[in-house]
Amino acid sequence: MRALGWNDGELLILDQTRLPLEERWVHCRTVEEVAEAIERMRVRGAPAIGVAAAFGVVLGAQRAVEQGRRISAAVREAVARLAATRPTAVNLFWALSRMEKVAEVAGEGREAVARLEREAEAVMREDERVNRRIGRWGAELIPQRARILTHCNTGALATAAYGTALGVIRAAREEGKEVQVWVDETRPFFQGARLTAYELVQEGIEGTIITDSTAAALMAKGWVDLVIVGADRVAANGDVANKIGTYGLAIAARYHGIPFYVAAPTSTFDGSLADGRAIPIEERNPDEVLQVAGVRMAPPGASALHLAFDVTPHSLIDALITEKGVLRPPIPDAVQGLLRGGT
Amino acid sequence: MRALGWNDGELLILDQTRLPLEERWVHCRTVEEVAEAIERMRVRGAPAIGVAAAFGVVLGAQRAVEQGRRISAAVREAVARLAATRPTAVNLFWALSRMEKVAEVAGEGREAVARLEREAEAVMREDERVNRRIGRWGAELIPQRARILTHCNTGALATAAYGTALGVIRAAREEGKEVQVWVDETRPFFQGARLTAYELVQEGIEGTIITDSTAAALMAKGWVDLVIVGADRVAANGDVANKIGTYGLAIAARYHGIPFYVAAPTSTFDGSLADGRAIPIEERNPDEVLQVAGVRMAPPGASALHLAFDVTPHSLIDALITEKGVLRPPIPDAVQGLLRGGT
Repeated sequence: MRALGWNDGELLILDQTRLPLEERWVHCRTVEEVAEAIERMRVRGAPAIGVAAAFGVVLGAQRAVEQGRRISAAVREAVARLAATRPTAVNLFWALSRMEKVAEVAGEGREAVARLEREAEAVMREDERVNRRIGRWGAELIPQRARILTHCNTGALATAAYGTALGVIRAAREEGKEVQVWVDETRPFFQGARLTAYELVQEGIEGTIITDSTAAALMAKGWVDLVIVGADRVAANGDVANKIGTYGLAIAARYHGIPFYVAAPTSTFDGSLADGRAIPIEERNPDEVLQVAGVRMAPPGASALHLAFDVTPHSLIDALITEKGVLRPPIPDAVQGLLRGGT
Repeated sequence: MRALGWNDGELLILDQTRLPLEERWVHCRTVEEVAEAIERMRVRGAPAIGVAAAFGVVLGAQRAVEQGRRISAAVREAVARLAATRPTAVNLFWALSRMEKVAEVAGEGREAVARLEREAEAVMREDERVNRRIGRWGAELIPQRARILTHCNTGALATAAYGTALGVIRAAREEGKEVQVWVDETRPFFQGARLTAYELVQEGIEGTIITDSTAAALMAKGWVDLVIVGADRVAANGDVANKIGTYGLAIAARYHGIPFYVAAPTSTFDGSLADGRAIPIEERNPDEVLQVAGVRMAPPGASALHLAFDVTPHSLIDALITEKGVLRPPIPDAVQGLLRGGT
């Protein structure tokens, strides 16, 4: 399963706001179309956003060449527009930075566009390879017949392919382990109920959707063997920003003595931020909480706060699974080692 | 605001599945209509269910007299039907037991119906009085300018009037305290976003709706001064069954050192159960999780688990607020004292 495709100067985005009931592809031919698709969460998931943004830069450069404008200026504009879409997932900025570096040396003209295109394709291809490595490392942590709780969607739809946390579940299954997945529905966008459940059904992996606030009750019953989630940004000390609700899960897991794992590529690590308090947390439109499936739930006059992410301190994390290996407590030291180039 | 009314042989139920967008009253003239209204959650909230069930018994007796049948048999049938509606909230069984006791001594005929009617009216009237007492006790625990987090709906709509946990918030406000309320939306039925927000807007109390999984993040920010919830059943040791999600909130509150309070009338206490593990937890139709506002979220083939309640151990509760006073740790001893007739 793939949610992104590059086809002859066009970025194809499987519209994740329509899934699972409708498989509709959005055809993006401009930077603005890619930016809006990211803002409206037609494509979401930190690695997938990075890949989409990389191709957004290519589209900007292509358009510039067609219009006889300079690529360097077009890339600057594209990067500025795409960087303004969503603040939390660092993969966006990481991918844009890669594209900028290539643009700096690529010069002008169609050959420069081709170099940018190759770089975006590399970002996409590498993400799949990295995810398969994360899966292999992570699968070692998954016991036979594990009952795994996960939050949001971290699968093929959230990445170039395969997935991060859901990739670990895939890998465990590929190694012949039986797994059963508790799928947090993940309000307000229902990425769990809509997207993770969709991937699990397609893979034939047993999954059961629960409301987000059911997780702790299942832990108390002894029905959860481990929790695994993805990440949108990992600070230098290992604090993790991820979909809102992750932090509460980590607290509940610790309370019950259940391992709490985070799976993320090194492109999600941001060594420039000392800890999680420095990670910018996106606040989105309250209407996305107040309305569900186009129906307003709340009375006139009611207001809402819509935080899209929260921060889980490294102290609650039992392992950070990257493509370079599994980081164990003390997490800050392990992350420092990773950022310095080891594992 | 009231959600239940008794009018000349008819129980009026404000349909809480339609609120806040539509204020539609359901007219119940039979036991079956009351039972279905409880099952479908047109009336919900432990004390309100108790009141509705009491009047359901009256309707059964009335119908029997009209049809020339014996009241005693009709009451038995009514109690059996109403007791089978929802298993967790003990107020239902408490109210039915009161009605049965009156029926045992009331004899037959119209005068017996009148006695049952007076008992149901007493159940309703007492609930309001009890809630106002809970409010006064509880308000002492609410500091000036408190930022209070609550879950589900525990207000006038969940009771005969005034409310339990939301009654405490009302009482604090009536005493001149400024309060700000974080309203958990409360999946899957959105009792927070729909009902609590509706009551707060009507009262002019500042409220902000959040998704359930946002609560822990707000605690980490230092934006929550206390948590207060209601209860559906309190075991003899003080363990509390309440709307699913309560337990996770209690864990998060403890992790952050934030007081966690439960407000409930003594009619919610069940001295016959040693601890929370013995409380029957209702499992409802998974479709109520899989569909939202009539729209299916999950893909074909996906399944869900819908637990309606969870159990919070007394060890996580900082105070149990009843009409007879505030029970403090050690909670088991305090509950034993309450059940023996003291406070």
